[in-house]
Amino acid sequence: MTLVAEHIEGDTRDRILEVAERLFRQIGYQKTTVGDIAKELRMSPANVYRFFESKKAIHQAVAQSLMGEVELEAQRIVAKPGPVKERFRELLTTVHRMNTERYVGDSKLHEMVEIAMEEDWEVCVAHIHRVTEAIGAVIAQGVASGDFEAPDLPLAALCTCTAMIRFFHPQMIAQADNKPGPTIDQMIDFVIAGLSPRH
Amino acid sequence: MTLVAEHIEGDTRDRILEVAERLFRQIGYQKTTVGDIAKELRMSPANVYRFFESKKAIHQAVAQSLMGEVELEAQRIVAKPGPVKERFRELLTTVHRMNTERYVGDSKLHEMVEIAMEEDWEVCVAHIHRVTEAIGAVIAQGVASGDFEAPDLPLAALCTCTAMIRFFHPQMIAQADNKPGPTIDQMIDFVIAGLSPRH
Repeated sequence: MTLVAEHIEGDTRDRILEVAERLFRQIGYQKTTVGDIAKELRMSPANVYRFFESKKAIHQAVAQSLMGEVELEAQRIVAKPGPVKERFRELLTTVHRMNTERYVGDSKLHEMVEIAMEEDWEVCVAHIHRVTEAIGAVIAQGVASGDFEAPDLPLAALCTCTAMIRFFHPQMIAQADNKPGPTIDQMIDFVIAGLSPRH
Repeated sequence: MTLVAEHIEGDTRDRILEVAERLFRQIGYQKTTVGDIAKELRMSPANVYRFFESKKAIHQAVAQSLMGEVELEAQRIVAKPGPVKERFRELLTTVHRMNTERYVGDSKLHEMVEIAMEEDWEVCVAHIHRVTEAIGAVIAQGVASGDFEAPDLPLAALCTCTAMIRFFHPQMIAQADNKPGPTIDQMIDFVIAGLSPRH
Protein backbone atom coordinates (compact mmCIF):
# COMPACT_ATOMS: atom_id res chain seq x y z
CA MET A 1 0.00 0.00 0.00
CA THR A 2 1.34 3.46 -0.82
CA LEU A 3 1.59 6.18 1.79
CA VAL A 4 -1.30 8.04 0.18
CA ALA A 5 -3.53 4.97 0.27
CA GLU A 6 -2.59 4.38 3.91
CA HIS A 7 -3.47 7.96 4.68
CA ILE A 8 -6.89 7.57 3.08
CA GLU A 9 -7.51 4.30 4.94
CA GLY A 10 -6.70 5.98 8.24
CA ASP A 11 -8.88 8.85 7.30
CA THR A 12 -11.86 6.59 6.53
CA ARG A 13 -11.41 4.80 9.86
CA ASP A 14 -11.49 8.14 11.69
CA ARG A 15 -14.57 9.27 9.77
CA ILE A 16 -16.38 6.04 10.68
CA LEU A 17 -15.59 6.63 14.35
CA GLU A 18 -16.64 10.25 14.17
CA VAL A 19 -20.01 9.41 12.65
CA ALA A 20 -20.48 6.45 14.99
CA GLU A 21 -19.85 8.61 18.05
CA ARG A 22 -22.31 11.23 16.77
CA LEU A 23 -25.01 8.63 16.13
CA PHE A 24 -24.41 6.93 19.48
CA ARG A 25 -24.90 10.33 21.14
CA GLN A 26 -27.96 11.18 19.06
CA ILE A 27 -29.95 7.98 18.91
CA GLY A 28 -28.14 5.73 21.38
CA TYR A 29 -25.77 2.80 20.95
CA GLN A 30 -28.39 0.05 20.90
CA LYS A 31 -30.49 1.71 18.22
CA THR A 32 -27.60 2.61 15.91
CA THR A 33 -26.84 -0.02 13.25
CA VAL A 34 -23.74 -0.43 11.11
CA GLY A 35 -26.10 0.32 8.21
CA ASP A 36 -26.94 3.73 9.74
CA ILE A 37 -23.26 4.55 10.07
CA ALA A 38 -22.55 3.47 6.48
CA LYS A 39 -25.50 5.46 5.15
CA GLU A 40 -24.32 8.67 6.83
CA LEU A 41 -20.92 8.17 5.20
CA ARG A 42 -22.45 7.29 1.82
CA MET A 43 -20.63 3.99 1.79
CA SER A 44 -21.71 0.34 1.89
CA PRO A 45 -21.92 -1.54 5.22
CA ALA A 46 -19.39 -3.95 3.66
CA ASN A 47 -16.91 -1.09 3.48
CA VAL A 48 -17.44 -0.29 7.18
CA TYR A 49 -16.79 -3.95 7.97
CA ARG A 50 -13.43 -3.66 6.15
CA PHE A 51 -12.35 -1.40 9.01
CA PHE A 52 -14.27 -2.83 11.95
CA GLU A 53 -15.31 -6.44 12.19
CA SER A 54 -18.44 -5.67 14.21
CA LYS A 55 -20.50 -2.93 15.80
CA LYS A 56 -18.88 -3.95 19.05
CA ALA A 57 -15.45 -3.17 17.58
CA ILE A 58 -16.69 0.30 16.60
CA HIS A 59 -18.10 0.77 20.09
CA GLN A 60 -14.80 -0.26 21.59
CA ALA A 61 -12.87 2.21 19.43
CA VAL A 62 -15.27 5.06 20.27
CA ALA A 63 -15.02 4.25 23.98
CA GLN A 64 -11.23 4.14 23.70
CA SER A 65 -11.14 7.53 22.03
CA LEU A 66 -13.44 9.12 24.66
CA MET A 67 -11.30 7.67 27.45
CA GLY A 68 -8.13 8.63 25.54
CA GLU A 69 -9.09 12.30 25.77
CA VAL A 70 -9.20 12.05 29.56
CA GLU A 71 -5.83 10.27 29.59
CA LEU A 72 -4.27 12.96 27.37
CA GLU A 73 -5.50 15.71 29.66
CA ALA A 74 -4.16 13.79 32.67
CA GLN A 75 -0.76 13.46 31.05
CA ARG A 76 -0.74 17.17 30.24
CA ILE A 77 -1.23 17.95 33.94
CA VAL A 78 1.55 15.51 34.89
CA ALA A 79 3.97 17.23 32.49
CA LYS A 80 3.19 20.87 33.19
CA PRO A 81 5.11 22.95 35.76
CA GLY A 82 3.66 24.20 39.05
CA PRO A 83 3.31 23.18 42.71
CA VAL A 84 2.65 19.44 43.09
CA LYS A 85 -0.35 19.61 45.42
CA GLU A 86 -2.11 22.08 43.12
CA ARG A 87 -1.56 19.86 40.11
CA PHE A 88 -2.59 16.78 42.09
CA ARG A 89 -5.86 18.50 42.90
CA GLU A 90 -6.24 19.66 39.29
CA LEU A 91 -5.65 16.14 38.01
CA LEU A 92 -8.28 14.51 40.24
CA THR A 93 -10.77 17.32 39.60
CA THR A 94 -10.22 17.09 35.84
CA VAL A 95 -10.85 13.35 35.70
CA HIS A 96 -14.04 13.92 37.70
CA ARG A 97 -15.19 16.79 35.49
CA MET A 98 -14.46 15.04 32.20
CA ASN A 99 -16.13 11.80 33.30
CA THR A 100 -19.15 13.71 34.53
CA GLU A 101 -19.52 15.59 31.24
CA ARG A 102 -18.98 12.47 29.17
CA TYR A 103 -20.92 9.83 30.94
CA VAL A 104 -23.45 11.41 33.21
CA GLY A 105 -24.67 14.63 31.59
CA ASP A 106 -25.15 12.71 28.36
CA SER A 107 -27.58 9.85 28.95
CA LYS A 108 -26.96 8.26 25.54
CA LEU A 109 -23.23 8.15 26.20
CA HIS A 110 -23.99 6.78 29.64
CA GLU A 111 -25.67 3.81 27.94
CA MET A 112 -22.48 3.33 25.95
CA VAL A 113 -20.39 3.32 29.10
CA GLU A 114 -22.65 0.79 30.79
CA ILE A 115 -22.11 -1.49 27.81
CA ALA A 116 -18.38 -0.83 27.76
CA MET A 117 -18.19 -1.86 31.40
CA GLU A 118 -20.06 -5.05 30.70
CA GLU A 119 -18.61 -6.02 27.33
CA ASP A 120 -15.26 -4.27 26.85
CA TRP A 121 -14.04 -4.56 30.38
CA GLU A 122 -10.43 -4.77 29.16
CA VAL A 123 -10.74 -1.32 27.58
CA CYS A 124 -11.95 0.09 30.90
CA VAL A 125 -9.22 -1.65 32.88
CA ALA A 126 -6.56 -0.26 30.52
CA HIS A 127 -8.04 3.22 30.96
CA ILE A 128 -8.15 2.96 34.75
CA HIS A 129 -4.55 1.76 34.60
CA ARG A 130 -3.41 4.80 32.60
CA VAL A 131 -5.25 7.27 34.84
CA THR A 132 -3.73 5.54 37.88
CA GLU A 133 -0.28 5.86 36.28
CA ALA A 134 -0.77 9.60 35.79
CA ILE A 135 -1.79 9.91 39.44
CA GLY A 136 1.28 7.87 40.41
CA ALA A 137 3.50 10.18 38.37
CA VAL A 138 2.28 13.26 40.27
CA ILE A 139 2.65 11.46 43.60
CA ALA A 140 6.24 10.60 42.59
CA GLN A 141 6.87 14.29 41.90
CA GLY A 142 5.43 15.04 45.35
CA VAL A 143 7.73 12.50 46.98
CA ALA A 144 10.68 14.15 45.21
CA SER A 145 9.63 17.62 46.36
CA GLY A 146 8.95 16.47 49.92
CA ASP A 147 5.21 17.21 49.68
CA PHE A 148 4.22 13.56 49.81
CA GLU A 149 5.38 10.40 51.51
CA ALA A 150 4.70 7.12 49.69
CA PRO A 151 6.94 4.15 50.42
CA ASP A 152 4.99 2.08 47.86
CA LEU A 153 4.27 4.38 44.93
CA PRO A 154 2.03 2.13 42.78
CA LEU A 155 0.00 1.25 45.88
CA ALA A 156 -0.39 4.92 46.81
CA ALA A 157 -1.68 5.62 43.29
CA LEU A 158 -4.13 2.68 43.46
CA CYS A 159 -5.43 3.76 46.86
CA THR A 160 -5.86 7.36 45.65
CA CYS A 161 -7.78 6.18 42.61
CA THR A 162 -9.92 3.86 44.77
CA ALA A 163 -10.62 6.61 47.31
CA MET A 164 -11.89 8.77 44.44
CA ILE A 165 -14.29 6.16 42.95
CA ARG A 166 -17.32 8.20 43.94
CA PHE A 167 -16.00 11.01 41.74
CA PHE A 168 -14.46 8.94 38.94
CA HIS A 169 -16.78 6.01 38.29
CA PRO A 170 -19.65 6.85 35.92
CA GLN A 171 -22.20 4.82 37.91
CA MET A 172 -21.06 6.33 41.22
CA ILE A 173 -21.10 9.88 39.81
CA ALA A 174 -24.66 9.29 38.63
CA GLN A 175 -25.72 8.06 42.08
CA ALA A 176 -23.77 10.65 44.08
CA ASP A 177 -26.29 13.41 43.38
CA ASN A 178 -28.75 12.27 46.00
CA LYS A 179 -26.31 10.61 48.39
CA PRO A 180 -24.70 12.15 51.45
CA GLY A 181 -20.98 12.66 50.98
CA PRO A 182 -18.04 15.02 51.01
CA THR A 183 -17.38 17.51 48.22
CA ILE A 184 -14.60 16.58 45.82
CA ASP A 185 -12.32 19.20 47.41
CA GLN A 186 -12.92 17.75 50.88
CA MET A 187 -12.18 14.28 49.55
CA ILE A 188 -8.96 15.46 47.88
CA ASP A 189 -7.91 17.08 51.18
CA PHE A 190 -8.48 13.72 52.88
CA VAL A 191 -6.37 11.90 50.28
CA ILE A 192 -3.62 14.54 50.50
CA ALA A 193 -3.60 14.08 54.30
CA GLY A 194 -3.04 10.36 53.72
CA LEU A 195 -0.09 11.10 51.45
CA SER A 196 1.48 13.81 53.60
CA PRO A 197 4.69 13.09 55.47
CA ARG A 198 4.27 12.54 59.20
CA HIS A 199 7.27 13.55 61.27
CA MET B 1 -56.15 -4.05 71.37
CA THR B 2 -54.94 -6.21 74.23
CA LEU B 3 -51.25 -6.89 74.79
CA VAL B 4 -51.69 -10.47 73.63
CA ALA B 5 -53.32 -9.36 70.38
CA GLU B 6 -50.55 -6.82 69.81
CA HIS B 7 -48.01 -9.54 70.33
CA ILE B 8 -49.70 -11.77 67.78
CA GLU B 9 -49.89 -8.90 65.29
CA GLY B 10 -46.15 -8.23 65.63
CA ASP B 11 -45.52 -11.91 65.31
CA THR B 12 -47.48 -12.15 62.06
CA ARG B 13 -45.60 -9.17 60.66
CA ASP B 14 -42.28 -10.85 61.45
CA ARG B 15 -43.43 -14.13 59.89
CA ILE B 16 -44.45 -12.33 56.70
CA LEU B 17 -41.01 -10.73 56.50
CA GLU B 18 -39.28 -14.02 57.20
CA VAL B 19 -41.15 -15.83 54.45
CA ALA B 20 -40.76 -12.90 52.06
CA GLU B 21 -36.99 -12.82 52.56
CA ARG B 22 -36.78 -16.57 51.98
CA LEU B 23 -38.84 -16.38 48.79
CA PHE B 24 -36.89 -13.35 47.54
CA ARG B 25 -33.70 -15.38 48.05
CA GLN B 26 -35.12 -18.50 46.45
CA ILE B 27 -37.05 -17.27 43.45
CA GLY B 28 -36.09 -13.59 43.28
CA TYR B 29 -37.91 -10.40 44.16
CA GLN B 30 -39.52 -9.79 40.78
CA LYS B 31 -40.99 -13.26 40.55
CA THR B 32 -42.34 -13.40 44.10
CA THR B 33 -45.94 -12.26 44.45
CA VAL B 34 -47.86 -11.26 47.56
CA GLY B 35 -49.99 -14.34 46.76
CA ASP B 36 -46.91 -16.58 47.03
CA ILE B 37 -46.06 -15.11 50.42
CA ALA B 38 -49.63 -15.52 51.66
CA LYS B 39 -49.81 -19.10 50.41
CA GLU B 40 -46.64 -20.09 52.28
CA LEU B 41 -48.15 -18.65 55.44
CA ARG B 42 -51.54 -20.27 54.80
CA MET B 43 -53.27 -16.93 54.96
CA SER B 44 -55.15 -14.78 52.47
CA PRO B 45 -53.35 -12.07 50.46
CA ALA B 46 -55.83 -9.65 52.07
CA ASN B 47 -54.36 -10.52 55.45
CA VAL B 48 -50.84 -9.78 54.20
CA TYR B 49 -52.11 -6.42 52.94
CA ARG B 50 -53.34 -5.66 56.47
CA PHE B 51 -49.68 -5.51 57.48
CA PHE B 52 -48.03 -4.17 54.34
CA GLU B 53 -49.81 -1.98 51.83
CA SER B 54 -47.79 -3.29 48.89
CA LYS B 55 -45.09 -5.70 47.80
CA LYS B 56 -42.82 -2.69 47.73
CA ALA B 57 -43.50 -2.08 51.44
CA ILE B 58 -42.53 -5.71 52.16
CA HIS B 59 -39.38 -5.28 50.09
CA GLN B 60 -38.53 -2.15 51.99
CA ALA B 61 -38.96 -3.86 55.35
CA VAL B 62 -36.83 -6.84 54.26
CA ALA B 63 -34.09 -4.50 52.97
CA GLN B 64 -34.24 -2.56 56.22
CA SER B 65 -33.86 -5.71 58.27
CA LEU B 66 -30.88 -6.93 56.20
CA MET B 67 -29.20 -3.55 56.52
CA GLY B 68 -30.17 -3.39 60.19
CA GLU B 69 -28.09 -6.49 60.88
CA VAL B 70 -25.01 -4.72 59.50
CA GLU B 71 -25.77 -1.63 61.60
CA LEU B 72 -26.18 -3.73 64.73
CA GLU B 73 -22.84 -5.43 64.18
CA ALA B 74 -21.23 -2.03 63.54
CA GLN B 75 -22.63 -0.67 66.81
CA ARG B 76 -21.36 -3.74 68.64
CA ILE B 77 -17.82 -2.97 67.44
CA VAL B 78 -18.18 0.68 68.44
CA ALA B 79 -19.20 -0.33 71.97
CA LYS B 80 -16.72 -3.10 72.65
CA PRO B 81 -13.38 -2.50 74.35
CA GLY B 82 -9.98 -2.78 72.65
CA PRO B 83 -7.43 -0.65 70.78
CA VAL B 84 -9.11 1.90 68.51
CA LYS B 85 -7.18 1.19 65.30
CA GLU B 86 -7.91 -2.53 65.58
CA ARG B 87 -11.62 -1.90 66.05
CA PHE B 88 -11.59 0.65 63.24
CA ARG B 89 -10.16 -2.01 60.94
CA GLU B 90 -12.62 -4.60 62.23
CA LEU B 91 -15.53 -2.24 61.63
CA LEU B 92 -14.62 -1.48 58.01
CA THR B 93 -13.81 -5.13 57.31
CA THR B 94 -17.09 -6.28 58.85
CA VAL B 95 -19.21 -3.93 56.75
CA HIS B 96 -17.35 -5.18 53.66
CA ARG B 97 -17.76 -8.84 54.60
CA MET B 98 -21.44 -8.58 55.50
CA ASN B 99 -22.28 -6.61 52.36
CA THR B 100 -20.36 -9.09 50.23
CA GLU B 101 -22.19 -12.06 51.76
CA ARG B 102 -25.55 -10.37 51.50
CA TYR B 103 -25.54 -8.70 48.18
CA VAL B 104 -22.89 -10.22 46.00
CA GLY B 105 -22.60 -13.89 46.85
CA ASP B 106 -26.36 -14.14 46.60
CA SER B 107 -27.50 -13.03 43.13
CA LYS B 108 -31.19 -13.02 44.04
CA LEU B 109 -30.54 -10.72 46.96
CA HIS B 110 -28.38 -8.62 44.68
CA GLU B 111 -31.46 -8.07 42.51
CA MET B 112 -33.28 -6.90 45.63
CA VAL B 113 -30.52 -4.43 46.43
CA GLU B 114 -30.54 -3.02 42.91
CA ILE B 115 -34.24 -2.38 43.31
CA ALA B 116 -33.77 -0.91 46.77
CA MET B 117 -31.22 1.51 45.36
CA GLU B 118 -33.60 2.58 42.63
CA GLU B 119 -36.90 2.59 44.50
CA ASP B 120 -36.22 2.83 48.23
CA TRP B 121 -33.33 5.21 48.03
CA GLU B 122 -34.31 6.76 51.38
CA VAL B 123 -33.84 3.40 53.09
CA CYS B 124 -30.32 3.14 51.65
CA VAL B 125 -29.44 6.71 52.58
CA ALA B 126 -30.59 6.10 56.17
CA HIS B 127 -28.45 2.94 56.27
CA ILE B 128 -25.36 4.71 54.90
CA HIS B 129 -25.97 7.42 57.46
CA ARG B 130 -26.01 4.93 60.36
CA VAL B 131 -22.89 3.11 59.17
CA THR B 132 -21.14 6.49 58.75
CA GLU B 133 -22.18 7.39 62.31
CA ALA B 134 -20.65 4.18 63.65
CA ILE B 135 -17.43 4.97 61.79
CA GLY B 136 -17.54 8.50 63.21
CA ALA B 137 -17.96 7.10 66.72
CA VAL B 138 -14.79 5.01 66.42
CA ILE B 139 -12.89 7.95 64.91
CA ALA B 140 -14.03 10.04 67.90
CA GLN B 141 -12.64 7.38 70.23
CA GLY B 142 -9.39 7.55 68.26
CA VAL B 143 -9.23 11.32 68.61
CA ALA B 144 -9.74 10.91 72.36
CA SER B 145 -6.99 8.30 72.61
CA GLY B 146 -4.61 10.31 70.42
CA ASP B 147 -4.60 7.69 67.66
CA PHE B 148 -6.46 9.89 65.20
CA GLU B 149 -6.62 13.55 64.31
CA ALA B 150 -9.91 14.82 62.90
CA PRO B 151 -10.76 18.50 63.30
CA ASP B 152 -14.12 17.89 61.56
CA LEU B 153 -15.43 14.57 62.85
CA PRO B 154 -18.56 14.11 60.66
CA LEU B 155 -16.47 15.02 57.60
CA ALA B 156 -13.75 12.51 58.54
CA ALA B 157 -16.42 9.81 58.83
CA LEU B 158 -17.96 10.76 55.46
CA CYS B 159 -14.55 10.73 53.76
CA THR B 160 -13.70 7.35 55.31
CA CYS B 161 -16.99 5.90 54.11
CA THR B 162 -16.48 7.39 50.65
CA ALA B 163 -12.91 6.10 50.44
CA MET B 164 -14.26 2.61 51.18
CA ILE B 165 -17.01 2.63 48.49
CA ARG B 166 -15.22 -0.04 46.49
CA PHE B 167 -15.55 -2.35 49.49
CA PHE B 168 -18.96 -1.21 50.80
CA HIS B 169 -21.16 -0.56 47.78
CA PRO B 170 -22.84 -3.72 46.44
CA GLN B 171 -22.33 -2.72 42.78
CA MET B 172 -18.69 -1.83 43.36
CA ILE B 173 -18.01 -5.04 45.29
CA ALA B 174 -19.48 -6.99 42.39
CA GLN B 175 -17.25 -5.18 39.89
CA ALA B 176 -14.11 -5.17 42.01
CA ASP B 177 -13.36 -8.82 41.29
CA ASN B 178 -11.83 -8.15 37.92
CA LYS B 179 -10.59 -4.64 38.53
CA PRO B 180 -7.10 -3.61 39.57
CA GLY B 181 -7.06 -2.23 43.10
CA PRO B 182 -5.67 -2.40 46.61
CA THR B 183 -6.70 -5.07 49.09
CA ILE B 184 -9.09 -3.95 51.79
CA ASP B 185 -6.26 -4.00 54.35
CA GLN B 186 -4.11 -1.76 52.15
CA MET B 187 -7.04 0.60 51.70
CA ILE B 188 -7.67 0.72 55.45
CA ASP B 189 -3.96 1.50 56.00
CA PHE B 190 -4.33 4.38 53.56
CA VAL B 191 -7.40 5.71 55.39
CA ILE B 192 -5.71 5.33 58.78
CA ALA B 193 -2.73 7.31 57.43
CA GLY B 194 -5.15 10.09 56.48
CA LEU B 195 -6.55 10.11 60.01
CA SER B 196 -3.24 9.86 61.84
CA PRO B 197 -1.84 12.89 63.65
CA ARG B 198 1.07 14.50 61.82
CA HIS B 199 3.72 15.85 64.16
